[in-house]
Amino acid sequence: MALAHKGLEAEFVPCRFTEKDKFAFSRSRTVPVLVDGEEVVSESWDIAVYLDRAYPDRPSLFGGDHGQTLGRFIYDWADTTLISQTVQIILPDIYEVVTAEDRDYFRTSREGRFGKSFADMRANRTTNMAVLNLALRPLRVTLAQREFVAGDAPAFADYAIFGCFQWARCTSADDLLASDDPIHAWRRRMLDLFDGYARGFAARAVS
Amino acid sequence: MALAHKGLEAEFVPCRFTEKDKFAFSRSRTVPVLVDGEEVVSESWDIAVYLDRAYPDRPSLFGGDHGQTLGRFIYDWADTTLISQTVQIILPDIYEVVTAEDRDYFRTSREGRFGKSFADMRANRTTNMAVLNLALRPLRVTLAQREFVAGDAPAFADYAIFGCFQWARCTSADDLLASDDPIHAWRRRMLDLFDGYARGFAARAVS
Repeated sequence: MALAHKGLEAEFVPCRFTEKDKFAFSRSRTVPVLVDGEEVVSESWDIAVYLDRAYPDRPSLFGGDHGQTLGRFIYDWADTTLISQTVQIILPDIYEVVTAEDRDYFRTSREGRFGKSFADMRANRTTNMAVLNLALRPLRVTLAQREFVAGDAPAFADYAIFGCFQWARCTSADDLLASDDPIHAWRRRMLDLFDGYARGFAARAVS
Repeated sequence: MALAHKGLEAEFVPCRFTEKDKFAFSRSRTVPVLVDGEEVVSESWDIAVYLDRAYPDRPSLFGGDHGQTLGRFIYDWADTTLISQTVQIILPDIYEVVTAEDRDYFRTSREGRFGKSFADMRANRTTNMAVLNLALRPLRVTLAQREFVAGDAPAFADYAIFGCFQWARCTSADDLLASDDPIHAWRRRMLDLFDGYARGFAARAVS
């Protein structure tokens, strides 16, 4: 979404959970990794900052220094609150659709990280959904007032949050959002951006 | 803090919980209420927006339109997550220090609103502190990277969050923050601002 916002073309290299060798050159243990000529940048935030610095003539992802610092808080909120609350809901769903080669690694690494079996996570789903619902309050209040988190037009704060919903949308068997939730309407607007770019990736649950 | 940031003088009118008649003219049910000549504005956010619009030559509370929209998300986070999680921890403490005339009203209204007695809230304190601690993660990550939420210098995003900590600092018997928490160091910086303005209000717990 950040690349589309900047109007930049890129070649995307799909990568399975057990194919970390594909990006070992970056020294990052996680995706995304951006390669731009001689530059190698990992982590969504650092990539966005790099893109705005390297391509200052294209639409800004942050709208200036102040937008970047406040945007960082929103990114951190997405990372520490939204994603960490969503992950325990959708991990058992992801397991169902992950490729055969990755299934053992995925189960062992994720169940180990959370100290819980996928069965236990599934049993806690109702509670986890309720906690997520509470955690979403600031986003809901914000989106009841305006079209995008960043105002009349989307910016990196929107993409950082949308990434989590797109991840859930493509992997989870149920929709995390009720259809009358202002966040639901915002997600539809995000899916419409850039000629429906994100909508082009199939949703697992119909919504 | 917003008035001090703008370098504006004001007369402060203390108001007890049962003295809503003092600001009935504003049609607001809650403080703060700002009276500036003919203008009457209530709600912290609307007051901050008013001050920036009415006094554009003084230091901005938001740093432009983009800062204002992203700042709104942080304000909403403080309002719906930080404050709502803090309130159940400190309500029984506030009850201990509230003036005699307000005690009955305070207990009845607050216990009714939360459907829990102060004794039950106190019994849940350890759990509520753990949930608050999790909710503080985005703020902690942000403040591990820089001096203030808004960057190198404080802005409304900082004041909106600080208000909750100052409220707890003045009323709660225990400190909500561990001394090695980056949020603790930030709170000290906030207390230092404007010649120690906020520090001039006595803390209940020593910290």
